[in-house]
Amino acid sequence: MQTKNMKITMAYDGTNYHGYQKQKNNPITIQQTVEQAIEKVFKHPFEINGCSRTDAGVHAREYVFSCRLPKSVPEQGIIRSLNDSLPPDIAIISAEQADDDFHARFNSLGKQYEYLIYTSPKDPFLATRALRLWKCPDINIMQRAADILIGEHDFKSFCSADCTLENTVRTIYNISVSQENNFISIKVAGNGFLYNMVRIIVGTLIAVSEGKISAEDIKNILDKKDRTLAGMTVPAHGLYLNKVFYSEKEVETIGK
Amino acid sequence: MQTKNMKITMAYDGTNYHGYQKQKNNPITIQQTVEQAIEKVFKHPFEINGCSRTDAGVHAREYVFSCRLPKSVPEQGIIRSLNDSLPPDIAIISAEQADDDFHARFNSLGKQYEYLIYTSPKDPFLATRALRLWKCPDINIMQRAADILIGEHDFKSFCSADCTLENTVRTIYNISVSQENNFISIKVAGNGFLYNMVRIIVGTLIAVSEGKISAEDIKNILDKKDRTLAGMTVPAHGLYLNKVFYSEKEVETIGK
Repeated sequence: MQTKNMKITMAYDGTNYHGYQKQKNNPITIQQTVEQAIEKVFKHPFEINGCSRTDAGVHAREYVFSCRLPKSVPEQGIIRSLNDSLPPDIAIISAEQADDDFHARFNSLGKQYEYLIYTSPKDPFLATRALRLWKCPDINIMQRAADILIGEHDFKSFCSADCTLENTVRTIYNISVSQENNFISIKVAGNGFLYNMVRIIVGTLIAVSEGKISAEDIKNILDKKDRTLAGMTVPAHGLYLNKVFYSEKEVETIGK
Repeated sequence: MQTKNMKITMAYDGTNYHGYQKQKNNPITIQQTVEQAIEKVFKHPFEINGCSRTDAGVHAREYVFSCRLPKSVPEQGIIRSLNDSLPPDIAIISAEQADDDFHARFNSLGKQYEYLIYTSPKDPFLATRALRLWKCPDINIMQRAADILIGEHDFKSFCSADCTLENTVRTIYNISVSQENNFISIKVAGNGFLYNMVRIIVGTLIAVSEGKISAEDIKNILDKKDRTLAGMTVPAHGLYLNKVFYSEKEVETIGK
C-alpha cells in the first residue's frame, strides 16, 4: 500500500483518558483510541507519533501527531472518517500531507500550554475544566513572579521529584497571566517542558499570590534545584495544550 | 433535634449519574449523592424531595429540592458545608428556609427546560453538553412548528411509548427557538412534562426543519395520540433543567 506522511491536529477532552501515551496494562489512552480508530477506518494498523505526552485529565485544543496513512485517501476524507470513528471527546481538526521526514515531536520548536482557574461560586460544569480557588489571585503579583521564569533556566525545582532527566535546562518563551471576569488564564510557552513543569509553575505562582512565596524567591528556587521549594502541583484538569510550534514564526507570534 | 423545612437549589452536570432518582440496584444518582452528603455533614440521614426526575445524562442549572435540616445551622453554613462534601459536578446554589408545608414537587407551577444543539465542527468539549448536527436547522421553521405545541394539549404522541399515565394532557407555556453563532437553543416551559416529552418535542422540531415532517403536521400528530408519528427522542446530554417555577410571577416572566 502506498502511504503518505501526515501532520494531523486534534483536540480532546482528557477527562476520561489515562493520558496521551499508550500503556502496557491497557487503560484507555488518547493514543490507543486514535490508533484504534485509524485501524478501523483504514483496515490496517498505523502507529501515530504524538508531539508530547499529556497526563491523565489534561486537555488539548491543538495536539499534533504524525503518521503514515494510505496515499489514496484525501485529507477531507481522513478528517471526516476519523471523526466518525473517534468518540465524541476526541476531534480531528485538520490533516495535511507533510514532508516525508516530518515527526510531530522531533520537529516541534515548542508548545504553549494554558492553565485555567476560576473563582466564581462552585460551577458543576467546570468540574473537569478549571481549578476552583476560593480567593481570586492577584494577577499582577503572579505576572511579576512569572517574568522571572522567562528565559533559559535549569528548571529542576519545577519538575516532579522523581524526574531522572540529566538535562533539566529549558527555555520559557513567555508566561502571560490574564483575567476575564472570574476566570484567570496562565499561558506558558516554551521550547520544552519537564514532567509536571507547567503545573508546578502555576502552583508556585498561586503560592506567590497567596504570600507564601515572594516573587523575589523565584530566582532562589531556580538556583537551589530543589523541588520542595516550589509550589504545589496543581490538578491536571485545569491544563490545556493550546498549540505546538513548528516554525520560528509561530514561536515569534504566539509563543512570545 | 429541631429541624426547619428548606428550599434548596442546586446545579449539576448529569454526565456521570444515572439520573436524579434513587434506585434500588444502587447505581450512582444525584439524589443518593446529595443524601449521602447531607448525612455526612449533619451526622443524620434526611430524605430530600426533588422537584422532578431527570434522566441519565441530563443536566440542571437550577434544580430545587425540599428537605428538613437541623434548625441550628444557618443557610450559608448549609451551602458551604454541602458544597464541600458534594463532588465537583454537583453544586448547591442557594438554600432558604421555606414554609413548613413547602414541597419542591407538589408546589411547583412548572419548569423551563433548555435543549442545546451545535453545528460547528466536532468539539470534544461539547461531547456531553450539546447535540451535534451536521446541518444547521432553520430556526424560523422550528419556531413555527413549536408555536402549534404551545397551550393545553394531550401530549400522548410526545411521550415515551411505554408511558402508562392516564392523563397525558399538559400545558406548554412557551417554546422559544434561538440561535447564537453555531449554537441553537430550544427553551420549553410548561406546567408539567411527560417522560421524554422535551426530547421528543426537540426531535420533532428537528424533523420539521429537515423537511421530514411539515409544520402543519404537528396538529395532526397531537390529535392522533401516536408516539410513532412524532420525531426521534434526541439524546439526553443536550438537555438542561433551567428553572422551576413556584410563583405565577415566575411563570409570567420566565415561562412565557
